[in-house]
Amino acid sequence: MTTTTSYRPIDGHPAGSVTDSSPDEVAAVVARAAAVAPVVAAASPATRLGWLERVAATLESHGDELVRLADTETSLGTARLTGELARVAAQLRFYGAVAVEGSYLGVARDAATATAPSLTRVNQPLGPVAVFGASNFPFAFGVLGNDTASALAAGCPVVAKAHPAHVLLSVRLAELAAEALVEAGAPSGTLGLVVGMDAGVQLVRAGQVAAVGFTGSQAGGMALWRLANERETVIPVYAEMGTVNPVVVTRAAAAHRLDEIATGFVGSFTLGSGQFCTKPGLVLAPAGHDVAAAVGAALEAAAPQPVMLTEAIASHATSGVDDLVAAGARVVARVPARSEGWSTDAVVLAAPAAALTAGSRLLEECFGPVAVVVEYADDDERDALIATLQPSLAATVATDASGADPDAPALVMKLAGQVGRVTIDDWPTGVAWTWAQQHGGPWPATSRPEATSVGGAALSRWVRPVAYQSVPEAWLPPAGRADNPWDVPQRIDGELRPRQR
Amino acid sequence: MTTTTSYRPIDGHPAGSVTDSSPDEVAAVVARAAAVAPVVAAASPATRLGWLERVAATLESHGDELVRLADTETSLGTARLTGELARVAAQLRFYGAVAVEGSYLGVARDAATATAPSLTRVNQPLGPVAVFGASNFPFAFGVLGNDTASALAAGCPVVAKAHPAHVLLSVRLAELAAEALVEAGAPSGTLGLVVGMDAGVQLVRAGQVAAVGFTGSQAGGMALWRLANERETVIPVYAEMGTVNPVVVTRAAAAHRLDEIATGFVGSFTLGSGQFCTKPGLVLAPAGHDVAAAVGAALEAAAPQPVMLTEAIASHATSGVDDLVAAGARVVARVPARSEGWSTDAVVLAAPAAALTAGSRLLEECFGPVAVVVEYADDDERDALIATLQPSLAATVATDASGADPDAPALVMKLAGQVGRVTIDDWPTGVAWTWAQQHGGPWPATSRPEATSVGGAALSRWVRPVAYQSVPEAWLPPAGRADNPWDVPQRIDGELRPRQR
Repeated sequence: MTTTTSYRPIDGHPAGSVTDSSPDEVAAVVARAAAVAPVVAAASPATRLGWLERVAATLESHGDELVRLADTETSLGTARLTGELARVAAQLRFYGAVAVEGSYLGVARDAATATAPSLTRVNQPLGPVAVFGASNFPFAFGVLGNDTASALAAGCPVVAKAHPAHVLLSVRLAELAAEALVEAGAPSGTLGLVVGMDAGVQLVRAGQVAAVGFTGSQAGGMALWRLANERETVIPVYAEMGTVNPVVVTRAAAAHRLDEIATGFVGSFTLGSGQFCTKPGLVLAPAGHDVAAAVGAALEAAAPQPVMLTEAIASHATSGVDDLVAAGARVVARVPARSEGWSTDAVVLAAPAAALTAGSRLLEECFGPVAVVVEYADDDERDALIATLQPSLAATVATDASGADPDAPALVMKLAGQVGRVTIDDWPTGVAWTWAQQHGGPWPATSRPEATSVGGAALSRWVRPVAYQSVPEAWLPPAGRADNPWDVPQRIDGELRPRQR
Repeated sequence: MTTTTSYRPIDGHPAGSVTDSSPDEVAAVVARAAAVAPVVAAASPATRLGWLERVAATLESHGDELVRLADTETSLGTARLTGELARVAAQLRFYGAVAVEGSYLGVARDAATATAPSLTRVNQPLGPVAVFGASNFPFAFGVLGNDTASALAAGCPVVAKAHPAHVLLSVRLAELAAEALVEAGAPSGTLGLVVGMDAGVQLVRAGQVAAVGFTGSQAGGMALWRLANERETVIPVYAEMGTVNPVVVTRAAAAHRLDEIATGFVGSFTLGSGQFCTKPGLVLAPAGHDVAAAVGAALEAAAPQPVMLTEAIASHATSGVDDLVAAGARVVARVPARSEGWSTDAVVLAAPAAALTAGSRLLEECFGPVAVVVEYADDDERDALIATLQPSLAATVATDASGADPDAPALVMKLAGQVGRVTIDDWPTGVAWTWAQQHGGPWPATSRPEATSVGGAALSRWVRPVAYQSVPEAWLPPAGRADNPWDVPQRIDGELRPRQR
């Protein structure tokens, strides 16, 4: 019988242990999810919103306990964790409201014509979704994070895997949420949890699991993607993975706003000790302004970093700096690690443009408070550097803030070609959960360039369309009926009709 | 130097040969597509509609020549091919109109709030798309079929692979279309063609190719999917593959409409010699009505079949019947093959319910004029049989046509859980290209359960979203701007606003 133990980042002592799920237990959790899947799917979006609201309220009413537990296992601090708890509750309500709005159902109705039969198209939930949360957002991307909330909102039961770095919190969150769901009328089994690495593998292989959501490292995401591709019935894996998230500083920006940009950049890349998938890790800056020195100075003036989430993350960050140096970078500034707990130095490096060749370690994420500055001599070199970058979740253009920076428009277009989100004079850390958000990007930022794991479109990952041909009204799913009982947007003979309210 | 030769199905003689594309030629075609991709992407949907309209008109003005050429290589007959040519022209116009409508751009705008930045979300074209058409629809799913038309409409250049069964037609279609595109103002290189198996492999491996569309066999689709998954940068493969497409006959249907259903079913499964990916290949019928005998009688009364598309298809259909017999079926009726050309018997078989176990050949497509009838004793056996079926593109429920068949509603719901389209008293062959169509389905019907290769939603396969955060209006892509110059639907702060017209 194996167990999963989480540790306190502040001193490395065990926080607690949970017995791993046995193969039989995993099978039972999946079977329960599969058994209730038709009931969850048949519930109206308004009903599911009610379920999610109850979960949100339960989390809020257990806020102190949950924040305390999360802080023990993550050391992210009570201020940050209190905010993140509020966020996860707001997310649950948001995805429920997105479901009620009903666009995710993609309803279209074509009347029969002389040459074509009547067709009604309605998205339906895929079935049980396996969710693998992230270490760095125990609430917002955890057991009840964006993947779980959007899957439940879309009508899919969820089986989450407990994250080993916050396994106690994972168990408690699942416990509270499962209880709240049942209280709110959802069938028992709508949300399940499994614990342990083997349990996670079994989960992805389980025949009744219909899709996988993952947030985390490249290695972890790729492993799950391969596992799913080896199934007899291949299922979609929506893996959102860390990337280098480049920042391009324009010439006008360097000339007019260098200190402000350097300070803002340090704030962003050291936020939460750099443990964000959207951490900006690479700056392309015009030569002649010594941007690396400015960033280094800003780092030295910054507050010391909190400890890291896990021993492995701390040691990878430390060895990552060595790898960057081996790849041709030099250290410009280094703020030493705290002496207590799992810690790593915060580091600014500089690398010559010539070092950024395909396959270079400099092009990859170094998870932690580490960033590299590369100078470009002219437009051609800048554009050549951009062309060597791996696709990322986000890219930032730092402009002169005039709204008329001559270099910016072309950079926006160019970067949009290789990332999921382009920000102007606004740092990429922080991912708003609104309708227009896109948290994703081309391979290897994610395994599905068309998908987002945050925002209104996140529900689309968990449904697929079915067309009903010559099917009588009464046998259609409610969302597709002419009388539109759920008041969802419908496309009628090609014309999009919004909700009536 | 290798060549690709097509053969006349009517007598097996060569129709003509085309030299295969060399590696350098393939690289050049892909490079041209990549070079013009930004221009194609930047063209407005209305501009692209103009391009597609010109292609459609060109096809129509070369109708006689194209139909003659297609008939030489496919023997599908001039009536069918004339209709299919009209269809491909209509499809080109339809996808262009879908682009102009603009929903495929998925535009959403969220204004900045106290806690979130402004975000504008707009889909953008993926880049060059590789298209592998089907043998059985030389026009509608060929070089200029649904995949190509929807990709061009969505703003992606296309490189098609010539189908070996109609290589002469492929070359001529690409030639005419490329010329028409340039005449209409599209950049040269918007549509390219490669010839030969090796060229196809190189195409999927090419770094600049951003996505793959495929219509054809399971084996072919899976091979391309694997190839794409082995790339350094994995790209989406939208493979639409053949399936068994079950028909469930209700008790009331068998009692009241057996002859009509048997005749209709024979018409559908022998249409085009059964060479449809939506051919209904398996009937589940209530015991006690001898449905197999009725279907057999209807087959014996039907017109003789045209020759098959290729020697391989004909011989696979012939051996497929032997495989079905080996898997436990018995032949009920057989209409002998024509003596000329590539031909195969049209066959109705019956199999006991007990033979339909997981992995049985009876659960898989047999491409050609072949169908199997299986009797169910009661509801439980019927539902157990349905549960053993592989997911399919389409499923049909044959009811008593009263609109009140008591068994039908539950069957619609059950079948919707495992197919892309459910038809009621309407055969699945024939796939209308309208807004509400869904031509797809869960694995292994397709490699992407969320996608359709026909209908308004087909464009979505070729785009991915980008969010623009705090980006000034003037730097946004046109579709995302507040002044909405393309008049597309926009979601403003969560509220969906249709076009203004």
